[in-house]
Amino acid sequence: MSNAQPSHIEIFDTTLRDGGQTEGISYSVDDKLRIARKLDELGVAFIEGGWPGSNPKDALFFEQARKEKWTHAKIVAFGATRRAKFKPEEDPSVRALVDAGTEVCCIFGKSSVLQVEEVLRTTLEENLRMIEETVAYLRSQGKRVIYDGEHFFDGFDRNPDYALKCLGAAHKGGAETLVLCDTNGGHLPWEVAATVQAVQKHFGPGVRVGIHLHDDTGCGVASSVAAIHAGAVHVQGTINGYGERCGNANLCVVIPNIELKLKLRALPAGHLARLHEVAAFVAEVANLAPANQMAYVGYSAFAHKAGVHVSAMQRHPDAYQHIDPKLVGNEMRVVVSELSGRSNIVEKATELGLTGLDDKLGAKVVELIKAKEHEGFSYEAAEASVALLVRRLTTGYQPLFTLLDYRGMVSRHGDRQAAEATIKLTVQGREVHMVAEGNGPVNAFDTALRKALHPFFPQVDQIQLADYKVRILNSNSGTGAITRVLIDWHDGSERRWSTVGAGTNILDATWLALADGYEYALTEAAAHKKEVSA
Amino acid sequence: MSNAQPSHIEIFDTTLRDGGQTEGISYSVDDKLRIARKLDELGVAFIEGGWPGSNPKDALFFEQARKEKWTHAKIVAFGATRRAKFKPEEDPSVRALVDAGTEVCCIFGKSSVLQVEEVLRTTLEENLRMIEETVAYLRSQGKRVIYDGEHFFDGFDRNPDYALKCLGAAHKGGAETLVLCDTNGGHLPWEVAATVQAVQKHFGPGVRVGIHLHDDTGCGVASSVAAIHAGAVHVQGTINGYGERCGNANLCVVIPNIELKLKLRALPAGHLARLHEVAAFVAEVANLAPANQMAYVGYSAFAHKAGVHVSAMQRHPDAYQHIDPKLVGNEMRVVVSELSGRSNIVEKATELGLTGLDDKLGAKVVELIKAKEHEGFSYEAAEASVALLVRRLTTGYQPLFTLLDYRGMVSRHGDRQAAEATIKLTVQGREVHMVAEGNGPVNAFDTALRKALHPFFPQVDQIQLADYKVRILNSNSGTGAITRVLIDWHDGSERRWSTVGAGTNILDATWLALADGYEYALTEAAAHKKEVSA
Repeated sequence: MSNAQPSHIEIFDTTLRDGGQTEGISYSVDDKLRIARKLDELGVAFIEGGWPGSNPKDALFFEQARKEKWTHAKIVAFGATRRAKFKPEEDPSVRALVDAGTEVCCIFGKSSVLQVEEVLRTTLEENLRMIEETVAYLRSQGKRVIYDGEHFFDGFDRNPDYALKCLGAAHKGGAETLVLCDTNGGHLPWEVAATVQAVQKHFGPGVRVGIHLHDDTGCGVASSVAAIHAGAVHVQGTINGYGERCGNANLCVVIPNIELKLKLRALPAGHLARLHEVAAFVAEVANLAPANQMAYVGYSAFAHKAGVHVSAMQRHPDAYQHIDPKLVGNEMRVVVSELSGRSNIVEKATELGLTGLDDKLGAKVVELIKAKEHEGFSYEAAEASVALLVRRLTTGYQPLFTLLDYRGMVSRHGDRQAAEATIKLTVQGREVHMVAEGNGPVNAFDTALRKALHPFFPQVDQIQLADYKVRILNSNSGTGAITRVLIDWHDGSERRWSTVGAGTNILDATWLALADGYEYALTEAAAHKKEVSA
Repeated sequence: MSNAQPSHIEIFDTTLRDGGQTEGISYSVDDKLRIARKLDELGVAFIEGGWPGSNPKDALFFEQARKEKWTHAKIVAFGATRRAKFKPEEDPSVRALVDAGTEVCCIFGKSSVLQVEEVLRTTLEENLRMIEETVAYLRSQGKRVIYDGEHFFDGFDRNPDYALKCLGAAHKGGAETLVLCDTNGGHLPWEVAATVQAVQKHFGPGVRVGIHLHDDTGCGVASSVAAIHAGAVHVQGTINGYGERCGNANLCVVIPNIELKLKLRALPAGHLARLHEVAAFVAEVANLAPANQMAYVGYSAFAHKAGVHVSAMQRHPDAYQHIDPKLVGNEMRVVVSELSGRSNIVEKATELGLTGLDDKLGAKVVELIKAKEHEGFSYEAAEASVALLVRRLTTGYQPLFTLLDYRGMVSRHGDRQAAEATIKLTVQGREVHMVAEGNGPVNAFDTALRKALHPFFPQVDQIQLADYKVRILNSNSGTGAITRVLIDWHDGSERRWSTVGAGTNILDATWLALADGYEYALTEAAAHKKEVSA
């Protein structure tokens, strides 16, 4: 099993446990359940849900998880070996592990002399007993046990004999997989691969070796893949690489490398194409901005900006891509920026369904984009605003509405807060004056605009804001800086679009992005396939 | 030179050229000069400034760069081999390269049969002549030439003979280093290392091999380090891993791996400790949020959140760190969150200079932090707000000022915009009512507050905002979402602090962060060392 490569690698996800140690992440129990359901759909083998012995929130997660049906994954409870000089059944943390009610447990124990003597402050012999007895006790309670050898690589470097004895104790206790952890994340891929091979040689082919790596040398993914290449059959990691310090090995990158590069199986057939969506979903629930440049699943992972690359790809789609983005559910995109040549603009216009963009109009579009980017706009993530910018330059384009004036007011008197907006606009030749309140000034604006448009376009009810993002440019200017607002929209179905606004006044920037969003949605359906002419 | 490891690896930085292809980056000429100066101080061997033949902005950079004195680095101009069927001196792009006036040029040429026939659309023989003649021409103009073999790894996989012939042509032309580029980024570390070794074997020890890798498999750093381990002596990459798609190999991670793990030299002695600052500086100029979890130099790279880790590190500092963070100019931090145990809070209070925090006050602080985080606050990056939160819970704390009421108004009438804020507060027992205008509502608030405080605390003039960041939480609620505002401050000297505010009303959230910033700065100097007692 160990040296001959198996066709299936076990994916052990710890987004909910180790991933929760990320600076800035704070899951609710409901967040954890939503992520677990998504991971089950993706088809990972194990979902480590938390450490029931360490906090009540995690214990509650397991209580809820027991009530649900899991299709592909086993839910795993995490814990430590028993305390020194206690029996396992006397240790409340081990008891909590049993009480979590999962079929599978994962426990960690020390592998390094330094950690045993200076951190745990017990003897080397007692540590071996703690490992073996805890595993054996959990086995006696009917659990499958995965054993995480904490600090294994550091321990093996300094004293390979003792590190192997610790794994041996877990093996004797009945652990089904021995997981080598690079807890401090300091090792390089070939070092990890060599240690995996040494452990396999020591235990022989009957023992399953797994790995748990961190990204402290920027090699978390590479070392995981190298370990699998060397014979490991189980890999632990997190979605989006969440985790303490630099994070854990990023499963969103490890999994495609296993399937597309090593040609081994990690997920059920056909599930790899869900990965892009899972990455975005988890980032959304974790409430962290997704890393655009993440390999395989990032928003920019297949985005092409250089004019020469875009021209080349028009000739040969594989010219600047190592895989078909669809394999991981991602897509190829052309980026429009002030550096764009004509070829990017034409490609983008085609992507947006605007055909017939001639050279003269193309040049006008490039010029206007440059001028707007100078003011702080950025069209790279706001395709609906690009489409409107093109349309507005075409002859005969009639905007659906035009803003005349607005006024926004916020106040606090003692504990009482208020926000109110008034707007005046022309819609289909008629002047409309509208006022609305909101729980903040932006919300008041949005509400007033919806109220003003509703009598003319009742379909505004379907238009929803998916995300509202604010970016401060030239941030050295402090509160006088230019603000860029990006709004993501959807209409409850598959349709999604994004708009941009910019300016020193955050409410004015917001207004521009709001107005673009409604105008695009209301004109788009009819005009999408209409030919554009200058 | 090739198989025996050299003691010095050439660092070739392309943050300004390939890094400029990052989605969202748009450098001005001044931005490029500021980054180049910083890279020169860091001590990289080469700074690739741009492609003078492709756009006038890059040509202007070289014009400016010629006027400056560079201490450690050579400025490099980038370009392509000549066009098919032209002489090098007839190709305007090659002429632009000569005109850039740098001592060193880097040119790229095709290495793969597919790219030559389907993208370049010329013959295999003509491509070899294009490479050799362009290098030879640049040498005849007195240039040192570095040759980038584009798509080298893909070309070598399919037709090693032809790929080696392309490198051979560059070698014959007089290139000093042959750089193997994984342009599409699809390879894994051991594949890269094997190809580096094959190239070295083919050319023998007299030829210098370099590498240029991208992060499309998440292995850009690992593959670079593996290639150096295999004998490459020159590595190309970017600060913060900027670059098209998933980015280039991240020099902020490659360089510490070379120096601290491979024990080779990459920078002048003592310069490694500048890396953290360089990474932050470049992110600031590029106007992209730095990646907190970046290995070595990220803000979170040595941040510890798990209670058990923090306790262990109090016993042994190396327990959860693979290196001393000071080696790269970074620092160890303890993260305070709702999951924090008492040990994190006490450690944090000590870090902030608050001594004497007893268990009772500690418990109150933890409870208040949990309640505030539930409202949308996050204290992980706002240490000044944590310090104030602790102080406000101590007996006898007198705030310097208290806000009573405020009102903010923004309006647009036609093209005319206005923003005005009025505030009422008590300062040292006296009621102050103040009004100010600004170029946006936040700026108007800040200006009114400064005006109100100035008669009492003239030192507010020294207080400056370094950054103002807005984060939308529960973004599914659209414009009604909770907004979190983070403000970074400085006083013109080394002193920096950060504050947080949150709420559905962006101006109210801003007010809280603004008020904390001024209160902290004005009380801090006196109170910093004062003992805290409940």
